[in-house]
Amino acid sequence: MTVSVDDVRAAAKRIAGRVRRTPVIEVAPGLTFKLELLQHTGSFKPRGAFNRLLTARENGHLTGKGLVAASGGNAGLAAAYAARELGIPARIFVPATTPAAKVAKLHTLQAEVVQVGNEYAEAYQAALEARDETGALLLHAYDQPEVVAGQGTIGLELLDQVGGFDTVLVAVGGGGLIAGIATALGDQARVIGIEPELAPTFHHALEAGEPVDVPVGGVAVDSLGGRRLGDLAFAAATQYTLSSLLVDDDAIVAARNELWRDHRLVVEHGAAVAYAALTSGVYRPAAGERVVVIVCGANTDPATLG
Amino acid sequence: MTVSVDDVRAAAKRIAGRVRRTPVIEVAPGLTFKLELLQHTGSFKPRGAFNRLLTARENGHLTGKGLVAASGGNAGLAAAYAARELGIPARIFVPATTPAAKVAKLHTLQAEVVQVGNEYAEAYQAALEARDETGALLLHAYDQPEVVAGQGTIGLELLDQVGGFDTVLVAVGGGGLIAGIATALGDQARVIGIEPELAPTFHHALEAGEPVDVPVGGVAVDSLGGRRLGDLAFAAATQYTLSSLLVDDDAIVAARNELWRDHRLVVEHGAAVAYAALTSGVYRPAAGERVVVIVCGANTDPATLG
Repeated sequence: MTVSVDDVRAAAKRIAGRVRRTPVIEVAPGLTFKLELLQHTGSFKPRGAFNRLLTARENGHLTGKGLVAASGGNAGLAAAYAARELGIPARIFVPATTPAAKVAKLHTLQAEVVQVGNEYAEAYQAALEARDETGALLLHAYDQPEVVAGQGTIGLELLDQVGGFDTVLVAVGGGGLIAGIATALGDQARVIGIEPELAPTFHHALEAGEPVDVPVGGVAVDSLGGRRLGDLAFAAATQYTLSSLLVDDDAIVAARNELWRDHRLVVEHGAAVAYAALTSGVYRPAAGERVVVIVCGANTDPATLG
Repeated sequence: MTVSVDDVRAAAKRIAGRVRRTPVIEVAPGLTFKLELLQHTGSFKPRGAFNRLLTARENGHLTGKGLVAASGGNAGLAAAYAARELGIPARIFVPATTPAAKVAKLHTLQAEVVQVGNEYAEAYQAALEARDETGALLLHAYDQPEVVAGQGTIGLELLDQVGGFDTVLVAVGGGGLIAGIATALGDQARVIGIEPELAPTFHHALEAGEPVDVPVGGVAVDSLGGRRLGDLAFAAATQYTLSSLLVDDDAIVAARNELWRDHRLVVEHGAAVAYAALTSGVYRPAAGERVVVIVCGANTDPATLG
């Protein structure tokens, strides 16, 4: 099961008008930010969510049972938002440890929230069971073809918005975003995955030759805390020869502060990871290399900026 | 002394590459934000500053004495930034009451900072005296033709970036921004000035038939706290029949919080004023009316978001 550039193009048509075409800004000669933090719900996730839901509706796979998903974070927000916009009931499973503010936000989006277990894995298991019992549609946070194709629409927009670029830096958690963008761009640009040292799912998958469970933690764990790279992301990494770079938590915190200080962008730690590769010097562009950084989320507390 | 659309076009050529072409985003059907908060130094002010400095350099009016300006806020930052970029010495006069953080920021931009008196008026007077004594170039915060023409380049960008719009909502302090945008747009769109009830320089000027001193205060006083509308802004208001709307401080605070909550934009209070006209219902667009809101500054403490 792979995703093709035609799937991404079809996704772009399908979700047009549902998601924002987020702007780009050239912040320095040869350095462009894609401002995907300005997407609905504050992250890129609605692209995949809409594509998954609309594809299912086209194929008659959406029952009255609606949607189930497991996430108290960006994926959950996107699932609830997309479902509400399409008039589909959404049931979101989250660990009992999820902060009340996140649960309240899901309620604001009219989702039913089920708190179960102490870890994400238990919430996910409960979502799978609900799907099996009720026939509801499962929206995975990253490892479904429609989700990858939806996130890939960012790549198509880049081709349209940026007049030539060589390299795209993308944060990796489960890998849905990088898989989609790499598929969209093919050989038109080099795509590099950036991860926190403390949540190196992609790095370890490349090393092991397959996705493996890794311990995750650190400042970006709320958005990049998946324990295992998705199979679709690994397939894309192989097909498009994607490489991986690691940044440490200090570099992530510094890049996040710098994004505010120098660029007036407030982002979550996970969304500062790609930029951190530049600011820390982990990635040094060649002379004249044109780099795009995907700034992918802003679900954070602005008061935590240093 | 007036400013023409040709002056704005010349300014756009002159400052190209020095300022960011800030992006727009359609956040809802018919509602577009111009993200000028992403400009260098976090506000629109560098446009006018660069145009003033570069024009003077072209005309041989820049002496080795460099630039003087009076402002501890956005205009001062822009003056220092533009001067540093052009290798011109900058002396910025600010009241002795200016917070240390603002003074430090000016120092970071390599400006000489002179703290004098307790009020803006005294700092301004000292800047005028320094100009007269040394032959340095004075950069006014809003009431110089080159400054107005520079800010107007935002209007030209809108014509290029937005596929048709009817109305532009602009915050007004001294009026340099609205004067420039109105000049750039002419009869191609309606431009409406929005002011805090507690800093109504434009409102009172329209009422009095000329700029008059008004008491100013309220949450946006740090950026919209000029006591008197500029003469150039009044001339533009007359020529382009600009109207004025007032919003109260509660509406400004609410709009600022909403810009973060719904759009992931952290802005200063003055930059929430234009959007507040919509969210408070002070301005209600007609059915199908396409509105652009200028989001013009982000020099604020994110921790103060509610």
